[in-house]
Formats: sequence, structure tokens, C-alpha cells
Amino acid sequence: MRHSVTILTETALRQLVPLDMVAVDCIENAFAALATKLVAMPPILRLDIPEHRGEVDVKTAYVPGIDHFAIKISPGFFDNPKLGLPSTNGMMVVLSSTTGLVEALLLDNGYLTDVRTAAAGAVAAKHLARTDAQTAAIIGAGMQARMQLQSLTLVRPVAKALVWARDPAKAEIFADEMTPQLGIPIKAAQSIAEATGGADIVVTTTPADQPLLRARDVDKGTHITAMGSDAEHKNEIAPDLIEAAYYVADRLSQTRKLGELHHSPLSGHDFPELGQIIAGLADGRSNAAQITLADLTGTGIQDTAIAALALSRARDAGAGQQFTL
Amino acid sequence: MRHSVTILTETALRQLVPLDMVAVDCIENAFAALATKLVAMPPILRLDIPEHRGEVDVKTAYVPGIDHFAIKISPGFFDNPKLGLPSTNGMMVVLSSTTGLVEALLLDNGYLTDVRTAAAGAVAAKHLARTDAQTAAIIGAGMQARMQLQSLTLVRPVAKALVWARDPAKAEIFADEMTPQLGIPIKAAQSIAEATGGADIVVTTTPADQPLLRARDVDKGTHITAMGSDAEHKNEIAPDLIEAAYYVADRLSQTRKLGELHHSPLSGHDFPELGQIIAGLADGRSNAAQITLADLTGTGIQDTAIAALALSRARDAGAGQQFTL
Repeated sequence: MRHSVTILTETALRQLVPLDMVAVDCIENAFAALATKLVAMPPILRLDIPEHRGEVDVKTAYVPGIDHFAIKISPGFFDNPKLGLPSTNGMMVVLSSTTGLVEALLLDNGYLTDVRTAAAGAVAAKHLARTDAQTAAIIGAGMQARMQLQSLTLVRPVAKALVWARDPAKAEIFADEMTPQLGIPIKAAQSIAEATGGADIVVTTTPADQPLLRARDVDKGTHITAMGSDAEHKNEIAPDLIEAAYYVADRLSQTRKLGELHHSPLSGHDFPELGQIIAGLADGRSNAAQITLADLTGTGIQDTAIAALALSRARDAGAGQQFTL
Repeated sequence: MRHSVTILTETALRQLVPLDMVAVDCIENAFAALATKLVAMPPILRLDIPEHRGEVDVKTAYVPGIDHFAIKISPGFFDNPKLGLPSTNGMMVVLSSTTGLVEALLLDNGYLTDVRTAAAGAVAAKHLARTDAQTAAIIGAGMQARMQLQSLTLVRPVAKALVWARDPAKAEIFADEMTPQLGIPIKAAQSIAEATGGADIVVTTTPADQPLLRARDVDKGTHITAMGSDAEHKNEIAPDLIEAAYYVADRLSQTRKLGELHHSPLSGHDFPELGQIIAGLADGRSNAAQITLADLTGTGIQDTAIAALALSRARDAGAGQQFTL
């Protein structure tokens, strides 16, 4: 049963799968499949290692018709920065959907997760933000904050942005670095209200465990993407804003447990999923004054979709190292 | 953050981790840890792909004090034999318990699972079978049937064995091949009752979904290890035999859902776990006439333990290929 496994490193994967419209389309198709196909997406496996402030999530999903599926291992060890290591890393194992054989190991240190997460923000904005949205407010100044802003520019005519971070110095660095990278003026805001006042799109990207954004902070017509919460205790959006908004989940069964919805008295209510809107099975934005809110917790189907894209690109390019078993 | 990942193939792992008393001791210690330490062992992640008669289990466990933990990916695709491929394969990812960094990829095609599963059979027999047990009955004639018999010989003075399989030809091949390998007479039985009558230890190793073994099939004083069931629908042991026996689980929360206990009216009752017996926290066999029954569904802690053994042996031997990320 000798077979060959393709091993791809982070360096190779960064070249093969940039954050571009192909990645956004790939994730959009994945969400559509979630609404229209018999996707198998089991609950996340989670292991906690409190002694080292560590946690590991394992996600997977199978989409009928896709030749491969990914099992993604995402560790987060929050004492790592003290050791000079990033908090998050991880990898994906890609298996054949027909034989279960391991076909590829994507040693991406979490890069593909960054791409598929940012791409989901673009998909949410594409279907929920006003088409003329020009001003973005980014809450948080980390890697996802950067990539979320970058991905917004792929789908909306973003002409300026404000950024707020708990540490003002980080917001200044974000503004200094992202202004030339995206070619638009980006300014550090002194408060969340300053960042979000006048914004057409707000993206929250923090690991906050207390609400940062309330109904009073956002104007009519704003679209909000909340992508920071992926665990029971995390919370960026106050219940009054969920109530004021047209709420959309990436996966309702997940956002009820891990997302902003978890902290809302409305968590038992029924809400549309992003994939249903993409597939035309639920309404998107209904008017220019509506506040829309996408609650993104991250789904295994995004991992399977981005991994399949990476493997297909690697095969086309002859990239990666072959390892015969 | 460049770091090095050790990649070990099945060939290397077969040399590094044979089924021997070191492996049995390793698994015995793992079960003891389960009973005495704050082990984190989340529920199994399971993905089903019915179109291809496929399933994937992902297991993990963290043991305080062990430097590494394993995440094991176990696919079973039951149409694979038609393609000339084995039904089961898979691999383990070994991560650092302190940083979450991927330290090793054990591309074992399921070999380490075979070893840790067979070793658990030896641990169960060591603590539950009579010390003078000489005759073994093996139900099933596959790879685990062979390894379970081999592992019994490590802990009990097994002098002869009978084997029964649904396909009599496979039982004959088992007998022909295992007799010289183990140096004891092994005979194919025509019925389960013929195999188990007079047996001191019975090991069931099949994927049966209807009970194969009833109370009337086993003599007083017999120890039974049922290791075939690892899913809701599988069942080798009839409820009357569970009632007649001193029942021991590998992990009670799992055997209630995935093991023989799942099909018993006693499933809500409290039973000892193997690790509690090893640690002296529960009784083992109380007398020579008692029927004992170990219900083994397979636990993530066995994977973490055998992976840590493999990695430690590999580092001592300088084995494997280093891959710098």
C-alpha cells in the first residue's frame, strides 16, 4: 500500500495561497455548500491544557463532491510569547474523501486559518455590507485585524479606515504599516466610538471576554463582522446590538455555543446562516439603513475548502516535498 | 520561529515500537494515569462519509507530566479492500505539551494503534485473568486477533489457543500462521462454543453488530476481553454475559456510548475502570471462579502514551527525518 504524501511548509503555502479573490470565492463556495449539500461537520474537538495556558481545537468537514477533506489542528498557547514563540500555530492533514489515505500535510503554522478566516470576513461584507461602503473600522490590531481590513478592500470600495486597539501604540503601528500596504489613509482612533462613528463596516477581531461594541456605537446602515469569539467565554458584541441588527451566523449551532449569540437572550431564536444568503435561501441586507451583523466562529468547511485549494495549487505548481510511505 | 519536526514512517515505527512488555508497561502506566491524574481526554471527534463507507475518528489526551500529547487520526474506509488498500490507516501528530508546537508526525498507517490496542488486551489480562490461564480463545482472525493473542503470551503462560472466525478459511490461515510464530498449538474451531469451551481467556476482536458471545458460552473463571466495539452500533457481548461477569471498562463514559455496555440494561450503573484496578483504587479478580470482562473501546491516552514512547525511542536512536519549518 505504498503511497505518497505531499508535505508543504508555511513558506510554500504563503506563495501558493495568498489572500485574494480566489481565496474569497473558495470560501464563499464553501459556505454555499454548507447550505445546499449534505455536508458532514462534526462538533469541534477541544483539548485544554490549563497548566500552560494552552488549548487545541480540531476541526473537520466533508463536502460531497470535494475529493479531499482536511483535519485541522489549531493549538493556542498563550504563554508562548514569553518564550519568543507565537501563541497560535498548527497544521492541517488532508485526506482522500474516497479512501481516507493521508494525501498531504500542510505545515502552515496557522497561515491557512488566517486566510480562510479573513476570506470569510470578505464574504460576509460582500453579502451584507452596503455596496457603497467606504469607511472601515477595525477593532483590534493583530494579524487578523490586518487581514480582515485587507480582505474588505477586495469586495468593497474601502477608501479609509480607523483602527482601535486596547494598546494605543499597537493601533499606531497598525496605521503606519497598513496605510502604505493598502494605499488608503488609516488612522488610529482614541476610542471605539471614534473608530465606529461614521464607519460603514466594523470588524471586531479581539479575544475580549466583555462586550466592546454596543448598539449606541454604530450608525444605521453599518455592517459588523464579529470574528473574535471562538470560545464560550469570549464576547465582543453586546446583546442590545444583536437585537438591533439583522443577525447572520456562520453556523448557527456553533454561534449559539461559541459566538456572540451565546451571550444574547436571543440565542434560542432562529437566524439565517451566511451560506443560506449566498445560496439565495435567506435574505441578505434589505435596505441601506439596516444594521447587519455577521457572527463568525470559524467552521471546518472553510478549512477543508482552503486545504483543497492549497493542494490543487501545489499539484499544479509541482510544489512541496513528496514523502513515500 | 523556525523549528524542527521529526517525521517517522511506518517502517521505522515498526522497528522502534514492537509489541513487547515495554509497550504493555507503557499502556498500563497510561491507564493508571487516567485514574490518578488530572488527565484531559475530550470526547472522540467522529466524521462519517457514508458515500464511501468511510469514517474518521480523532482522539487525543493530555497527561500532566508527559512532555508531549498526540492527536490521532484514524480513518476506516470499508470499500478500500476492493481497491487493494487496507480499510484502516491513519497517523498521529505529536505536539509539545508546553508550547503546542508540532514536534513529530508519526505516519504509521495505524500501526501504533494496533500496538496500543493489543497492549491494552495484555494489561486487561494481567489484572483480570487467572494467573494460571493457559488456554486462549480468539474470536475473529484479523490483525488485532493476531496481536491480541501475541500480547496475551506476554502476560500469561498461554500454552494453546483456539480461533473462530465467521469465514472458516480465515481461521485456518490464522492457525497455520500463528502456530509457528508463537510456538504453541493453535487450532481453528468450528463454532464459538467450541472455541470458548475450556478457554481461560476469550478475546473478541470482530466488528459484529449482533452479540456473538453469551453467558452460556463461557466457563466459570474465564476472563473475556471484548475489544471489537468502538462505535454505537457494534456489539459482541450479550447483556446476559455482562450481567454474569465482573465488568471493567477502559473508560466508562466511552463504553456506555461505544462499548459492549452500550447495549446492556446495566449501562447506567457504575463500574470500575481498568486504570482504577491498576492503581489499587478498585478490585481486580476476586476469586478463581469469577467471570471477568474488560470492555475496551480505545482511549486517547493510549495514543498519547504510545506516541511519546515512539518519539523518545526515535530520538534515542536518531531515527526519522528532520523537517525544518
